[in-house]
Amino acid sequence: MIKIQRALISVTDKTNLRELAEVLQAHGTEIISTGGTGAFLAGAGIPYTEISTVTGNPEAFGGRMKTISFNIESALLFDREKDAAEAVQLNIKPIDLVVCNLYAFEKYREAGTELSELIHHIDIGGPTMIRAAAKNSKYVAVVTDIHDYDTVISELRTNAGALGYETRKRLMAKAFNLTADYDAAIAQAMDSFNGVDSLRLSFTGGKTLRYGENSHQQASLYRLAGKNSALYDMEVLHGMEVSYNNILDVQAAIETVSTFSHTGCVIVKHNNPCGMAEGKSQRRAFELAWEGDTVSAFGGIIAFNTEATIEAVSYLAFDAEDKSKRKFVEIVAAPSFTEDALAYLKQQKNLRIIRFSTDMIKATEELRISNNTLLRQSKDNTLYSKIDSVTETPFDIEKQKDLVAFGLRAVQYIKSNAIALVMRTPENYLQLIGMGSGQPNRVNSVGLAVTKAKKNLGVDTLAGIDILLASDAFFPFEDNIDLAHEAGITKIIQPGGSIRDKHVIARCNELGVSMALTGCRHFKH
Amino acid sequence: MIKIQRALISVTDKTNLRELAEVLQAHGTEIISTGGTGAFLAGAGIPYTEISTVTGNPEAFGGRMKTISFNIESALLFDREKDAAEAVQLNIKPIDLVVCNLYAFEKYREAGTELSELIHHIDIGGPTMIRAAAKNSKYVAVVTDIHDYDTVISELRTNAGALGYETRKRLMAKAFNLTADYDAAIAQAMDSFNGVDSLRLSFTGGKTLRYGENSHQQASLYRLAGKNSALYDMEVLHGMEVSYNNILDVQAAIETVSTFSHTGCVIVKHNNPCGMAEGKSQRRAFELAWEGDTVSAFGGIIAFNTEATIEAVSYLAFDAEDKSKRKFVEIVAAPSFTEDALAYLKQQKNLRIIRFSTDMIKATEELRISNNTLLRQSKDNTLYSKIDSVTETPFDIEKQKDLVAFGLRAVQYIKSNAIALVMRTPENYLQLIGMGSGQPNRVNSVGLAVTKAKKNLGVDTLAGIDILLASDAFFPFEDNIDLAHEAGITKIIQPGGSIRDKHVIARCNELGVSMALTGCRHFKH
Repeated sequence: MIKIQRALISVTDKTNLRELAEVLQAHGTEIISTGGTGAFLAGAGIPYTEISTVTGNPEAFGGRMKTISFNIESALLFDREKDAAEAVQLNIKPIDLVVCNLYAFEKYREAGTELSELIHHIDIGGPTMIRAAAKNSKYVAVVTDIHDYDTVISELRTNAGALGYETRKRLMAKAFNLTADYDAAIAQAMDSFNGVDSLRLSFTGGKTLRYGENSHQQASLYRLAGKNSALYDMEVLHGMEVSYNNILDVQAAIETVSTFSHTGCVIVKHNNPCGMAEGKSQRRAFELAWEGDTVSAFGGIIAFNTEATIEAVSYLAFDAEDKSKRKFVEIVAAPSFTEDALAYLKQQKNLRIIRFSTDMIKATEELRISNNTLLRQSKDNTLYSKIDSVTETPFDIEKQKDLVAFGLRAVQYIKSNAIALVMRTPENYLQLIGMGSGQPNRVNSVGLAVTKAKKNLGVDTLAGIDILLASDAFFPFEDNIDLAHEAGITKIIQPGGSIRDKHVIARCNELGVSMALTGCRHFKH
Repeated sequence: MIKIQRALISVTDKTNLRELAEVLQAHGTEIISTGGTGAFLAGAGIPYTEISTVTGNPEAFGGRMKTISFNIESALLFDREKDAAEAVQLNIKPIDLVVCNLYAFEKYREAGTELSELIHHIDIGGPTMIRAAAKNSKYVAVVTDIHDYDTVISELRTNAGALGYETRKRLMAKAFNLTADYDAAIAQAMDSFNGVDSLRLSFTGGKTLRYGENSHQQASLYRLAGKNSALYDMEVLHGMEVSYNNILDVQAAIETVSTFSHTGCVIVKHNNPCGMAEGKSQRRAFELAWEGDTVSAFGGIIAFNTEATIEAVSYLAFDAEDKSKRKFVEIVAAPSFTEDALAYLKQQKNLRIIRFSTDMIKATEELRISNNTLLRQSKDNTLYSKIDSVTETPFDIEKQKDLVAFGLRAVQYIKSNAIALVMRTPENYLQLIGMGSGQPNRVNSVGLAVTKAKKNLGVDTLAGIDILLASDAFFPFEDNIDLAHEAGITKIIQPGGSIRDKHVIARCNELGVSMALTGCRHFKH
């Protein structure tokens, strides 16, 4: 415990400062302060010592020199034990607390301020005081965040104006994080004035995961510092810790299901949506998603976009007497759960139950770092720019706008080459009835999707069934059209953009297939 | 141009300092210096001013207070125009150059130094001087890196002891990058003493890419700062700028081909190796890789692991009279190119030719950041931990160790669920003859691989052909074994680890299939 005999307060942001200063005053702390902060304290009737009486120097050079001095930094830095005699000899009295926040550099930088002006917002004295106090946290406390005032005030009150080592140590780490962030922002800005595009990222809350994609790989999870909402914040309400692969799969599932217009369900396996449905009832949507690929759904990740109900989750048949009827899934994720749904799901000891909010998936950038190289891109957040019918048999856009959007959502989230066969069920649900994913050529994906759809529907041909084929990218050759047509498909939507579009369109016309182009590719790797 | 009248030199690392000091001396610069640096200069016969005569203060508190003072920071910070009169009045003489490097904090941190000792290696005076000088770079130069001495010396010589603004501006950005890095290291260390796992990453050399995975996505490419080698450094010898997707594909291709034991070729499409072969001749390996999937190879990314020869690359038939015989590929990558091979490839205007070194792919971590969340993992660098035959028909490990390794390499780099069918050709090459990738269930991948292999070999059954099936993960059910056996496959390698392994092994025994388990899964998403 260090009793705060003297405090140095120099802040740009005066929010909530008054109460802190009053508490210090009440405990007999001498407050040293600089110009603006001093004026604020005086206005609040709190006495303070003008810093120049401590530094022995005037405030100089338009405020560039206020605190930096032998006396101030010595008062912060000297070792209260080893250096005690030297301090007395040099007439240095300890300062036990620094309260400081920095010139708002980033605000001016973001506003596009010119270099000659921006440098005025680089704080030199503040970081020096903060770093000196933090270095000597064995004896000195440093408060750099107005959000820490409350806990500091309460600790001062509890301990008759003293602060404990654990608090000082925590505040010290926070202080160095602040100066690191501050200089990170300056470094990026100054690089850009030199024509260099640099980027600094800070992550916190690291958790060791059991392992990575495979058990011989180490892995951990962090949160991008300073962001309000992150997937990291998803709550595991039940079950084992989520794994590396779980996190990627959950992300794919909730990103996909969150795009739906109605209540819906997405089932993800190996990062690919393999079941998708939306419509009036959550239960029916779940059933239709499951029936879209019963083989893959086994061990899958289920996500709902609305509160999970008992009606829906009981489809999992966890309490079926015939154990073979019980559905094995790894994760059920939803924005919320009714009480009975949650109780039902908790029957399954190893099931992970996850609550998320759509705020958690709203960040607009994706970054991949490997081989010491960063690829940074904005998320694929545009579904289409237009929908143009390009065939003699017109593609009726108005009649099926929701089905088109549903199909495009599917290929947006299925790994390339991606083909999705989607349909409107007789009960007016939208369903993914067959998908082809992760193929090095497109015709393979068409083949996979067709096979799956036929199997799901128990038919030999898709002819006469109102199915839409959506493709994530253009068709390079007519073979894809032939294969789709052979299977009985008559409606295709794809981005277009191939130099061979006209041949592909011509083949559609020969075969009486209707096709629309969106102008918007959805590769995902 | 600023003539360096006075310089402050205070360095931990004295490397190459002598020449810099001599050049300053030769141009009449007054050198101010601290204890250790002063002793070094004295030893070199270079006169200097002891810093305490400038600060007006003694060196105090075991060296914690040496430079920080009203006089030093004023001399660095004051505006040479606006504040000139005030400086004279306060008796502040300008300092025009700071040469400073910092206490080696990171070295002690990496050595696991305890907090009480580690704080002694946090430099307070150094960053203050550096930041003050950098802020005032309109008038002051700051050198923080011994690697900049040469250019500074040469500029001082050229300009009679003066340094130009462009140099000062560049050095200023470098200085703030140094203090940002320094406090980043301190912040991470101090977090860890508080039980918080934090991570700070710095990237530089940002380049805007034409677009991201799709044209409506913005993208850029950076290099992880401070690393010797990065994929970022690959050289584009010819052709258009590489795209976002190109970079991912090239990475997959060169990572895969670099694992081969012999000269070889890998063809990647949509991030999946779809053609792979290795053996005696590069040309033949290229042919066999191409023949592994002629449909997918169209527009593919080709990587060699040895110098690309004219013999091999002429397989592309760029000069074929019959244009339909010319092979269209996006990229050819190799560690080097013979002169004639390079000339041959350059015929194709839009072909990207890339030179890489295997050093560029040796980083051991992969990171993904999305939704403000970081997933960090070590690379999948282990191929197998063991190979155990588990069937009545023994899996002959010794006879086919190289084929096993080749098959496992394939499933290591093909996206999950991954199945690879590999064989030894009559000419003793190893070839990927069929692959299944990116499927939400394993049986689909087996089906894809079998279909592809039959088509490639022009046969109705694989029976009698010595083909090995490799799987990236265990088989959950016997259906996979049935499908493989039906196709004529008799040898399987997979990690094992399912609770149903014994049923899968029993089915192999029923069918006379030999199987080995490796204990090492290779999921890749």
